[in-house]
Amino acid sequence: MKKFVASVGLFVAFASLSSSLSHAQEASKVQIFDSNITVAQVLKAQTGWCNALLKISSTYASGGINAAKPLAAQVINSAYAYQYGPVAFKPTLTSGAQTFRATKEGALAYFVGNDPNYPSDKGFALKDWRSCTAVNNVIQIAGPSATTMGNVLFTDSKGVVTTVDKTWNFVRENDGSIRIMLHHSSLPFGG
Amino acid sequence: MKKFVASVGLFVAFASLSSSLSHAQEASKVQIFDSNITVAQVLKAQTGWCNALLKISSTYASGGINAAKPLAAQVINSAYAYQYGPVAFKPTLTSGAQTFRATKEGALAYFVGNDPNYPSDKGFALKDWRSCTAVNNVIQIAGPSATTMGNVLFTDSKGVVTTVDKTWNFVRENDGSIRIMLHHSSLPFGG
Amino acid sequence: MKKFVASVGLFVAFASLSSSLSHAQEASKVQIFDSNITVAQVLKAQTGWCNALLKISSTYASGGINAAKPLAAQVINSAYAYQYGPVAFKPTLTSGAQTFRATKEGALAYFVGNDPNYPSDKGFALKDWRSCTAVNNVIQIAGPSATTMGNVLFTDSKGVVTTVDKTWNFVRENDGSIRIMLHHSSLPFGG
Amino acid sequence: MKKFVASVGLFVAFASLSSSLSHAQEASKVQIFDSNITVAQVLKAQTGWCNALLKISSTYASGGINAAKPLAAQVINSAYAYQYGPVAFKPTLTSGAQTFRATKEGALAYFVGNDPNYPSDKGFALKDWRSCTAVNNVIQIAGPSATTMGNVLFTDSKGVVTTVDKTWNFVRENDGSIRIMLHHSSLPFGG
Repeated sequence: MKKFVASVGLFVAFASLSSSLSHAQEASKVQIFDSNITVAQVLKAQTGWCNALLKISSTYASGGINAAKPLAAQVINSAYAYQYGPVAFKPTLTSGAQTFRATKEGALAYFVGNDPNYPSDKGFALKDWRSCTAVNNVIQIAGPSATTMGNVLFTDSKGVVTTVDKTWNFVRENDGSIRIMLHHSSLPFGG
Repeated sequence: MKKFVASVGLFVAFASLSSSLSHAQEASKVQIFDSNITVAQVLKAQTGWCNALLKISSTYASGGINAAKPLAAQVINSAYAYQYGPVAFKPTLTSGAQTFRATKEGALAYFVGNDPNYPSDKGFALKDWRSCTAVNNVIQIAGPSATTMGNVLFTDSKGVVTTVDKTWNFVRENDGSIRIMLHHSSLPFGG
Repeated sequence: MKKFVASVGLFVAFASLSSSLSHAQEASKVQIFDSNITVAQVLKAQTGWCNALLKISSTYASGGINAAKPLAAQVINSAYAYQYGPVAFKPTLTSGAQTFRATKEGALAYFVGNDPNYPSDKGFALKDWRSCTAVNNVIQIAGPSATTMGNVLFTDSKGVVTTVDKTWNFVRENDGSIRIMLHHSSLPFGG
Repeated sequence: MKKFVASVGLFVAFASLSSSLSHAQEASKVQIFDSNITVAQVLKAQTGWCNALLKISSTYASGGINAAKPLAAQVINSAYAYQYGPVAFKPTLTSGAQTFRATKEGALAYFVGNDPNYPSDKGFALKDWRSCTAVNNVIQIAGPSATTMGNVLFTDSKGVVTTVDKTWNFVRENDGSIRIMLHHSSLPFGG
C-alpha cells in the first residue's frame, strides 16, 4: 500500500518543514515513505478526466470511431481501477439492467457506444464536447483515498451546457497513479 | 483511529482462527485491536438506514411533524458523520443551489421538510413508506471505510415502488458506530 | 475516522493550492475533510514526547514522586492511545514477564516506578534528564498513521548521553490529537 | 490500494454472512472488493518468516553461502517491501552507523553476511537454527496494515533458545502478498 516518493520530491517537501525541526537530524538522512493522496492530486485527476473526455470527443470528430475507441480504452485503463476489481460506476445516462458498469467493457460501451452488448449506449464521449469543468462542493481525504462531490459542467459546440451531479472516489496506487474506484453521475432532479 | 474490540468478541474471533495457529502463543494472551469495517456491519447499517426511514414515516403518520422532526434529527445525528465535518450528501430530490447538503440542517430539511430555509423540501421521510430495501451491486471495503453502490427500493402504502440509484460511503468510528460520510442518490435516467 | 479541519486552517491550506486550480470553483465554497497525518505533526509529537519526559524529570526533582506521578499519568493519557485498546509498548529497560506494557498502569510504572506490581521499575522519567532528541532514520506515512524508526538521545545532568533505538507508530485521532499506538525501544546491541 | 478478492473466496465469505442478509439482493450478484488484512494473514506471514529463516539456515548447512545467499535475496524480495521504498528495519544484532537497514542490501548482509560493506555482519540466518516461533503480545489491525509486538524464540541445534523482543508492521499489497514495512528486533534488556 505504501508508495515510494522519489528523493527529489521528498527532500523538497522535507525542506519546507525545516523551520519546524527542533531535531538534531539532518533532513538529508531521513528517508520518507508517503502513501497519502493530496488535494492537488485529486484536482489534477479531475482535470485529467475532463481533458481525456475532450480528447476522445475531438479524436472521434477527426478520426471516427476506429480512432476514438482505442483511445477511450486506454483512458479507462489509466484513469479507472478496473484491473484491481469491480469499480462502482453509475454513469449519467444508463438505466435498467445496465445501470451499473462494474467492468471495463461496460465503461467503454458507455463512453464510445458501438457495442452490441450495450444497445442503449450512444457514446457519451462522442458528443461534440468543447469544455468540461469540475466544481466541487465537498472533498474528503483519507489516506490514499479521496472523495469529491459536486457538479461537472459540459459545454458542447453550440454552447449548450449540461450540468451533472457527480461523486468520485479516487485512490492513489502504488505506482503513483490516481485511479477512480467509484463514479456516480446523475442529471439534476427535475432538470 | 484504532478501536478497541472488547475481549469477549476478540477471543471468540480469535478462537475461530485457532486451527491456523502454528504458534506457541496462547490465544488468551494475545490482545487484538481492530479498526476495520466488515461487510456484515455495512449491510446492518443499510438496514438501519431503511428502518429509521420507515420509523420516521410511521411516527409522522401517528404523531405529526412535532414527533417526526426530533426523531429525524436523532437519526441524522447517529447515522451520519456531520459532527466530524462536512458530509457529502446529494439527496434524490434536490436541485439547484440546494442540491448538496453538507450540513445537518440541510439533511434534516430534506428528510422532514418544514424548514423555511429549504422551501422546496417536502420531507422525503414523511411519505407513507412501508418498506425499504437495499440491493447492492458493488461493495468496496478499505480499512474503516466502505463504499456501496446499487439500488434502494421504497414501497409506499399503495404498493407503488420507487427505485433509486444510490451510493454510500460508510466509516467505522472509534465508538464502534458506522456513519455515512457520503450519500449520493438519484432517480434512474429517463425513469 | 475522518476529522474536521476547522475552516481557517482549511482555507489557508486550500489557498496554497490555488495556483493549481484550473477549475471554475471558488476555493471558499469547497469544504474539505482531511484525516491524514503529516510529517510536521509527527515531528511535533516526537518533540512533545521528549519535552514531557523532561518535565516529569524536573517535576520529580522539585516536587518528588507525589508531583511527578500525576503529571506522568496525564502525559500517558494524552500521548498514548490506551483509551482505545491495548498499546504495543516495549520500553527500553523492561524484561521477562513484564517486558510489554499493554496497559496504562504498566506504562505509568515504567515512567515513574513506585508501583509494587512492577517491582523492577525504577522510573525512567525520574532520572535527571536535561535533554532529549529524536534522530529519525525512516518515517513512513499512511493515512492517519505514521511510523518512525531511529535513535533517541537522552542527556543527563552530568552530560552522559544514553542512545536508544526507537520505533514509534503514531495515529491521528478524531480530536486532532496525535497518539502513540506502538513504542519499541531498545539499547543498542553490544552497547 | 484496493485489491481484488477472487470470486470463489468472495462468495464463500459472503455466504457466511447470509444469515444477516435482510436484503432482497442475491449474494451472487454483489461484487466485493476488500483490501483489508486479517489476523490469519498476519499469523501466516509470521510463520512464513520463520520458515524462510530455517530454510536459509538448512540451505547454508547443505550448500554453503553460494546456495544460501540467492535464497536469502529471494526471501527478502518477497517478504519485505523494499521495492516500494525505505523499509524501517532494526535487526537484533546491529549497532553504530549500520544499526538501521533501510535498503535490501543492508537486509541481505544481516541475514547472510559475507558483504565487505557490512564487516560486522556474521549472517544471522546462517546459524544452525532448528525452530523459530512467534509469541504475540499485541496485534493491531488497521486497513491493509497490521502491527505485531511480542517475542520470537529461536532454537539452535544444541537446543539453546534465543528469545528476542520483536515488532513487525505488515502491509497487504495489491497482489495479495503480505510484506514487512517495519521490523524492530532487540535482545531482552539485561538478557
